[in-house]
Amino acid sequence: MRLATVITEAGSTAAALDEDGIWRRLPAPDLSALMAAGPIRLDDLTDPLLGAVPVQPLPSPGKVVCCGLNYGDHIFEMGRELPAYPTLFTKYADTLIGPGEPIELPAGLKVDWEAELAVVVGTALWRAGRDVAAAAIAGYTVANDVSVRDWQNRTSEWFQGKAWDRSTPIGPVIVTPDEVDVAAGVEVICRVNGEEVQRGSTRTLVFDPADLLAYISTFTILRPGDVVLTGTPGGVGAGRKPPRYLVDGDVVETEIPGIGTLRNAVAFHAGPAHQ
Amino acid sequence: MRLATVITEAGSTAAALDEDGIWRRLPAPDLSALMAAGPIRLDDLTDPLLGAVPVQPLPSPGKVVCCGLNYGDHIFEMGRELPAYPTLFTKYADTLIGPGEPIELPAGLKVDWEAELAVVVGTALWRAGRDVAAAAIAGYTVANDVSVRDWQNRTSEWFQGKAWDRSTPIGPVIVTPDEVDVAAGVEVICRVNGEEVQRGSTRTLVFDPADLLAYISTFTILRPGDVVLTGTPGGVGAGRKPPRYLVDGDVVETEIPGIGTLRNAVAFHAGPAHQ
Repeated sequence: MRLATVITEAGSTAAALDEDGIWRRLPAPDLSALMAAGPIRLDDLTDPLLGAVPVQPLPSPGKVVCCGLNYGDHIFEMGRELPAYPTLFTKYADTLIGPGEPIELPAGLKVDWEAELAVVVGTALWRAGRDVAAAAIAGYTVANDVSVRDWQNRTSEWFQGKAWDRSTPIGPVIVTPDEVDVAAGVEVICRVNGEEVQRGSTRTLVFDPADLLAYISTFTILRPGDVVLTGTPGGVGAGRKPPRYLVDGDVVETEIPGIGTLRNAVAFHAGPAHQ
Repeated sequence: MRLATVITEAGSTAAALDEDGIWRRLPAPDLSALMAAGPIRLDDLTDPLLGAVPVQPLPSPGKVVCCGLNYGDHIFEMGRELPAYPTLFTKYADTLIGPGEPIELPAGLKVDWEAELAVVVGTALWRAGRDVAAAAIAGYTVANDVSVRDWQNRTSEWFQGKAWDRSTPIGPVIVTPDEVDVAAGVEVICRVNGEEVQRGSTRTLVFDPADLLAYISTFTILRPGDVVLTGTPGGVGAGRKPPRYLVDGDVVETEIPGIGTLRNAVAFHAGPAHQ
């Protein structure tokens, strides 16, 4: 099943794609509101929605936690060793944008791509083990953990390079776990202006989605609609010799076959990245 | 002026202390709700509140950003050099507790104290300079960035040692900027079981509150009620030889003269800190 927040002429609504490939309304203005209100009931499917277009699926997650260094090939390209624990940092709801929206950043930054599988929490998790965490996954979506490398590397803490407002594409849809076999492997792909720059498989994740949710829930509660980004495979621009960064007008495509593709253009502006 | 969220027999309310030392009701159930609704108008002061007790002042900040390594003496005790940029990481609203509440953590962790001045944002800030940021400060309060050192040091990213639910005391009141001269220096003090373990002055901050708000607003919007913790002075347990960590039943007092004192007991429990 595919879930989305869609816009129609009548406004925004949560929606699910039925067997005939038609989006049908779910009873909330978006998936964040729907998931906050309780378990998703697919017998709530009502009106067909004509001309529905998926937008950023989760406008108001309370927590967006990201895992770095979670694919062997990316770990080695960044010059690090396989980790004993997940490396975690955070973004905000403000960081996220939807399919087709521009990646808006001030000019002059070293901006890099990081295609990722994102996990959406379906039920609250607090000090959960792996099995409980696995059962709490509402679905998977695509994300690009776009990173401002110069700010990321100003200090030991990556947050200031990872949480630029309106820089992280996510979506276009959330696919329920019955349709996504992360252990067998789904491919995580990034293209820049049509050129493939990353391709990895989730079967090489060091910490899988259930591991990550259980680990995070050891110290902080996860609630329905919270999002965990699972890390990026090899092929980032900073790992190249010489490094390659995004320039104004570049088109970043982030794809997970079986889930969908995000297409976002880089839109640098003249506003201050002073400090 | 002192602002607080207080409880009375009638429930929770935002409140301000009048010239006679009496708490008076402000029109919202807490300071987070009051600040989200617009500028604080002190002509809104109404009923006197008898038996009012300050609790956690800001139950729902959208962003809690923390600065590490911001006092010279703490930087040197952690074996680091004076930084060119602030080191930033995050907590959640879930991380915060109020005056008198226990610091609840699983047994077996290396738990340390970090007394800090906290800044509360009063008006939205987006790509602000220093002067605009300074004018946007609603007030100051006391916080203790209680840190789980073993988890903080598992990876390069401190977040997982800093964001344990119900571990960071904050409050008891927010004092408006006209009463707190951070540049001249207010003292930031921590005591454990009555023994003073930290005492620093904000006049030695590397990055002052206006610097921090302006810097953060370069990449993410700050909204009324958001909180920035400004870092801790020297004297943390991890900086001692041998290191000293908190044990069950320890009473942590965090004081900034002119603002107030937090008193929180450590309550370790048997729940899992597995993983």
